[in-house]
Amino acid sequence: MNTAPSPIIDELKHKIDFKTKPLGALGMLEEIALQIGQIQNSLTPQIINPHIVVFASDHGIAATGLVNPYPQAVTAQMVLNFLNGGAAINVFCRQNDIQLKVVDCGVNYDFNVMIDAKNFITAKMNLGTKNYLLEEAMTEAETHSAIEKGKEIVKNIVLNGCNTIGFGEMGIGNSSSASLIMSSILQMNVEDCIGRGTGVNEVQLTQKMKTLKKVYQFHQLQALNDKPIKLLQKVGGFEIAMMVGAYIEAANQNMIILVDGFIATAALLITSKINESILENCIFAHVSGEKGHEKMLHYLKAKPLLNLQMCLGEGTGAAIAIPLVKSAINFLNEMASFESANISNKE
Amino acid sequence: MNTAPSPIIDELKHKIDFKTKPLGALGMLEEIALQIGQIQNSLTPQIINPHIVVFASDHGIAATGLVNPYPQAVTAQMVLNFLNGGAAINVFCRQNDIQLKVVDCGVNYDFNVMIDAKNFITAKMNLGTKNYLLEEAMTEAETHSAIEKGKEIVKNIVLNGCNTIGFGEMGIGNSSSASLIMSSILQMNVEDCIGRGTGVNEVQLTQKMKTLKKVYQFHQLQALNDKPIKLLQKVGGFEIAMMVGAYIEAANQNMIILVDGFIATAALLITSKINESILENCIFAHVSGEKGHEKMLHYLKAKPLLNLQMCLGEGTGAAIAIPLVKSAINFLNEMASFESANISNKE
Repeated sequence: MNTAPSPIIDELKHKIDFKTKPLGALGMLEEIALQIGQIQNSLTPQIINPHIVVFASDHGIAATGLVNPYPQAVTAQMVLNFLNGGAAINVFCRQNDIQLKVVDCGVNYDFNVMIDAKNFITAKMNLGTKNYLLEEAMTEAETHSAIEKGKEIVKNIVLNGCNTIGFGEMGIGNSSSASLIMSSILQMNVEDCIGRGTGVNEVQLTQKMKTLKKVYQFHQLQALNDKPIKLLQKVGGFEIAMMVGAYIEAANQNMIILVDGFIATAALLITSKINESILENCIFAHVSGEKGHEKMLHYLKAKPLLNLQMCLGEGTGAAIAIPLVKSAINFLNEMASFESANISNKE
Repeated sequence: MNTAPSPIIDELKHKIDFKTKPLGALGMLEEIALQIGQIQNSLTPQIINPHIVVFASDHGIAATGLVNPYPQAVTAQMVLNFLNGGAAINVFCRQNDIQLKVVDCGVNYDFNVMIDAKNFITAKMNLGTKNYLLEEAMTEAETHSAIEKGKEIVKNIVLNGCNTIGFGEMGIGNSSSASLIMSSILQMNVEDCIGRGTGVNEVQLTQKMKTLKKVYQFHQLQALNDKPIKLLQKVGGFEIAMMVGAYIEAANQNMIILVDGFIATAALLITSKINESILENCIFAHVSGEKGHEKMLHYLKAKPLLNLQMCLGEGTGAAIAIPLVKSAINFLNEMASFESANISNKE
């Protein structure tokens, strides 16, 4: 006679299967409910005080204009837009009751006048990274310091009782960092990892490819696919490094992690190379319209909730996926069972 | 000199393109914003008091057990579950601030005890349809009466100031009606239009196919693809007929219409054959896991918002898509423009 308690996964599956619906009829919502129940080791999991943290920083390469159609100054302008509530991520956070935090990780602008905004976090590492065409983007000390800062930011957010978090980013030029990281970790040709970012045209795309191939060679990135921190240091950015720390701490705190698009997933590639088990806490919000994101998700064996051809960053994919994650938890917690509703199950 | 005012579509495109984001970066949300702006002929469209109406009815064929794994009694049991708030559609409507109405179009059960439930609408045409293996499912009078009743229900809902509506259904056996309608209108083999519905197994699926091929022959459905009302009468159901009337009236009232899954789209196939322009008001919430739905959407040139392998009916796909539709409208109404936020546009 086996008197051992059922593992939570069996109890969750039973609870899901005996809701008043055909088996499996809620599709991916059932998978999400099962995953979150396991994360929280609970038959009645909860989403509490969800947050999106947008990490903003500048990239040395962007000053060259070789990879980006928008000028570098747009990073700072968009940070001000976040603080004024006018960006897409503000709109979606307001709509879906998500608290938004904006972090200056290393924007090439002095925000002193703004530091009283209550959702603004100053964690400036430098006035942007170095140009990785010529040298490493960050020093080793900066890289480690940014990772530690990311952890600290998440620790503080957890103190507000938050158990669900998504990470977004803003940084003119950061899709190039993401492409280079992808190329190294997935061991794919750089060309196959480069997309239009914020909308380069054909000529600009050719130039972006040529530039990033040069960077790949210069830093010998093909040899760094198992040296994630070194890879991050050479071609990453402060916002990506801080996001890596944030992912590590969020998993350490056993939070539900909403993964956004191309750049957020590049940071997760680095993180998963440091500790693969973090993926158990990750829900993939969407597949971006940015070329390469689908392949990243495939590499991570991830099934995204949404495919709306969005490619904005800022955590917007994570923010609009929150209601679906809530639907997954709500059906698990609120629906009647066949027994409680006195409904005939299948013959 | 041309002093004619720009058509709304140009003004909407301009407004969308000058939001603080790269061109097209919000993907399908931009398409939805454009569509709703055109429907409402407004640069600041609104979603007001959204409703989901679930039409419930029984099918004569279900009593034979030849096409459905659940007994016919489940239709009535599920209606009681809707009225008690325990079904998936209740959960999702509560979550997303959607008002739910449940209509008894012809359930084989006497709900008299329940008629004081304020979200319950009695519009019983009969105690289920006739078995279409032997005769026409409905009389001509019943079919027209059901369509008119569907119009009346929507008219009354509009009186509450509602401008956004989705239609769901409940009726054991109704995926068979939907398959037959699809087969006739798309002129496809019946076999290619039949799925597992609420979860038939291999043996039951073979039996369902055999049964429905017989029905197709018996009623000569291949000749009815341009006679939508006659097709509806022969193999439809009261809930499908009422939904046809509801679609017609919702378009007539210029509402935003959220289209749910396989059965709701079968009703829309009928409706679009009556008046194709109704499609301009339709937003396709999701592609169902039910085989055939994707082909229906392709036929209608429709791009669904969600693909979560859900196949529950009840309007659940429409209900969970509402936050995305709100996101589309909210970014249009609330985001800053490059000019208002003082942000550099592309070089």
